[in-house]
Amino acid sequence: MSDPKTVKGPALYLALVHAPVINRRGEEIVAAVTNLDLHDLARLACTYELPACYVVTPLKDQQKLVHRLIHHWLHGIGGQLHPDRERALRRLRVASTLEEAIAHVEEEQGRPPFLWATSARGSGTDVEPSEARLILEATGRPGMMVLGTGWGLSGKVWRLCHGTLRPVEGRGDYNHISVRCAAAILLDRFFRK
Amino acid sequence: MSDPKTVKGPALYLALVHAPVINRRGEEIVAAVTNLDLHDLARLACTYELPACYVVTPLKDQQKLVHRLIHHWLHGIGGQLHPDRERALRRLRVASTLEEAIAHVEEEQGRPPFLWATSARGSGTDVEPSEARLILEATGRPGMMVLGTGWGLSGKVWRLCHGTLRPVEGRGDYNHISVRCAAAILLDRFFRK
Repeated sequence: MSDPKTVKGPALYLALVHAPVINRRGEEIVAAVTNLDLHDLARLACTYELPACYVVTPLKDQQKLVHRLIHHWLHGIGGQLHPDRERALRRLRVASTLEEAIAHVEEEQGRPPFLWATSARGSGTDVEPSEARLILEATGRPGMMVLGTGWGLSGKVWRLCHGTLRPVEGRGDYNHISVRCAAAILLDRFFRK
Repeated sequence: MSDPKTVKGPALYLALVHAPVINRRGEEIVAAVTNLDLHDLARLACTYELPACYVVTPLKDQQKLVHRLIHHWLHGIGGQLHPDRERALRRLRVASTLEEAIAHVEEEQGRPPFLWATSARGSGTDVEPSEARLILEATGRPGMMVLGTGWGLSGKVWRLCHGTLRPVEGRGDYNHISVRCAAAILLDRFFRK
């Protein structure tokens, strides 16, 4: 198993934010954790050698749920049957707030991460994911791609971010892909040269 | 709502194959349909203006399940609450076999589709998804990206395909992403110029 610290290239983290996010009426809510999001993002983190993916939720029972899931795959029967799943789920970490995740990355990497918000709508100041990679390569700082559940990140989260990534555009005007698929495409664009 | 027939560029279809696929011991099985796969692939089909995504399963009760899901979002309360989901789920079609899906595409497009198998392992004769797009542009034929559930497509399915797409490679040696995330990345690579 490769050690994330020995991987060449920038240290990029993921944060899957469940609060504060907005609902379809634009109100601030706490979204529920979706089991399959965690599996898919953990497997993506492993594929692209991200040191970790933070599951951000302030709800203690949801945090317990995530810890139980991780425990099942790391120490339960799950890991014995599917060692590739164990290897992936190891990269999940739980945080109560995005600020807590940021502080943790700074402690681990010795420097604060650049944060990029992601959204289905463009902001006019978006950077291409490949440009974001160049920023990390040029500065030597770690980075964090911030993904929102529900109907997207709230303004409070946006204000913690240094910039936004250009949204995934398709061939038409439809822009409602799942956070799982968005993360996959953005990571591929980030690392692909 | 844009009509797929008016979309510029090649007509690419998806097929999500549940049989015949293999299990982790390499045995031929029929995999169960996963609700979230259908949502994610339908939303991707809508994003990239694919005329349709075929859900391939020979099991009548699984076909009924898919029809019920589609009905819920097209005619039930689902579509009223989430019109973007209704728009996406419209692109799902059920087929008993991959051959049936191929015949349907040929009928719809007037020419048989080029088929590309997808896999987590390279085959030595893979083409880049962007090359596959060029083949469709040059020949004017429709195409179909064939995705396997379970542990991947069986040999019987491979023999129906004209070629294979280069697998998604990350930064390390881990190659176990979900079929949802693989489809997202391959479609993005296919259409991105």
